Amino acid sequence: MNKITKVNSAILIIGNEILSGRTQDTNTSTLATWLNSIGVKVEEVRVIPDIEKKIIDTLNLLRSNYDYVFTTGGIGPTHDDITAQSVSKAFGLKYKIHKEAFKILEVYYKPGEFNDGRQKMVWMPENAKLILNPTSGAPGFNVENVFCLPGVPSILKSMLGGLTNVIIGGKPILSLTISLRTVESEIANSLTKVQNENQDVEIGSYPFFQAGKLGVSIVIRSEDQSKIDSCSYQILEFINKKKIEIVDR
Amino acid sequence: MNKITKVNSAILIIGNEILSGRTQDTNTSTLATWLNSIGVKVEEVRVIPDIEKKIIDTLNLLRSNYDYVFTTGGIGPTHDDITAQSVSKAFGLKYKIHKEAFKILEVYYKPGEFNDGRQKMVWMPENAKLILNPTSGAPGFNVENVFCLPGVPSILKSMLGGLTNVIIGGKPILSLTISLRTVESEIANSLTKVQNENQDVEIGSYPFFQAGKLGVSIVIRSEDQSKIDSCSYQILEFINKKKIEIVDR
Repeated sequence: MNKITKVNSAILIIGNEILSGRTQDTNTSTLATWLNSIGVKVEEVRVIPDIEKKIIDTLNLLRSNYDYVFTTGGIGPTHDDITAQSVSKAFGLKYKIHKEAFKILEVYYKPGEFNDGRQKMVWMPENAKLILNPTSGAPGFNVENVFCLPGVPSILKSMLGGLTNVIIGGKPILSLTISLRTVESEIANSLTKVQNENQDVEIGSYPFFQAGKLGVSIVIRSEDQSKIDSCSYQILEFINKKKIEIVDR
Repeated sequence: MNKITKVNSAILIIGNEILSGRTQDTNTSTLATWLNSIGVKVEEVRVIPDIEKKIIDTLNLLRSNYDYVFTTGGIGPTHDDITAQSVSKAFGLKYKIHKEAFKILEVYYKPGEFNDGRQKMVWMPENAKLILNPTSGAPGFNVENVFCLPGVPSILKSMLGGLTNVIIGGKPILSLTISLRTVESEIANSLTKVQNENQDVEIGSYPFFQAGKLGVSIVIRSEDQSKIDSCSYQILEFINKKKIEIVDR
């Protein structure tokens, strides 16, 4: 058996607006979907407030525990945007004007519009690598294994393409979903058996309501397509025996 | 000045499906909105996989750091539902059949339908208090300051009503949003001044795109309406001076 080195990561969502319930975070699912597709597993997500000490402590813990850490939020021009200065402190780096970022925004804005507020966005940890922003100019940045992205979902999404060759993942994590017209309790025992016989495959069971009808999606995840196939064969076997309707596969 | 004891909490989302990006978590925003309305601040959210040790360690840390902890997910009938047994271990309690829960589900299901899979849902930490489920029968449970809720958003929502008199919050956290047709950098400096003059009020600034137009929402949060009013007065003052259009207030 090939021993594949797993590449893992954590996502750190920085922002009071998520903790107050005002804003629905969607960046986790965007980042997680993209990371899985390039072979990086997300093992933990944390949402924390815009408090410097909390950012520093959490970041230092996560960056030592995971191969990659992705932060979202707090890199805009207002007083509550304190990610860059907090990351600088976490790494013990100077927080200063990033010349390349300054040049980018100087060109991006019309003459006279690159004001104080906007200039705050070029203050970064010394020697940070830039993450280019094709949507609104202001770049994110990368220090060692930490990648700092903005909180606005459409801007964040547009910046991921530039990272695909920077993040080195393992084998992509593949998945197969089998959706059934049943309830979890009908398949629980049989599914447990399949999971026990396939310990290195991740099998999840997720109830859903769709068009007023109950159903269950079984999700099989592995880096190895043949393992998914063998697992799915065993699942389809008991599904056929139980005469359960397959909604989608 | 009245010294108000702040009541705080953490949310622990248990589930591989969130970490894989397959499922968009909405329970955080549901719980956070509800908790804020009853005077409980959410200070941290963590999303972790269905791994027993991870659940035990994270739960033990959070329950000692916060007044309340709310978990979501992992209390269904399938093999990947391991919240109840993990919580039992975290508290050093026996994991056993909860008689009251058993009775509830025995009545809920038709004769003969209360099968093995469903019976798994009445295994809980010994002497747990039940959180009733008006949607689908199977209750959540509460041990000390930890409240375990299901992952399915509609079921979770329907169970919060039963907790309103159980969770003892502080003063409700009030908020006022002023939405402007501007960009953050136009107001950053003035807003920083207002924040500095009102240290005990939380002021957030959130850019948005709506109907193709850029805008910024300023959110003022405090337990004290008069402080929000005074803050909003100062903000409206600089907005008027700058002739910025108010979109919504």
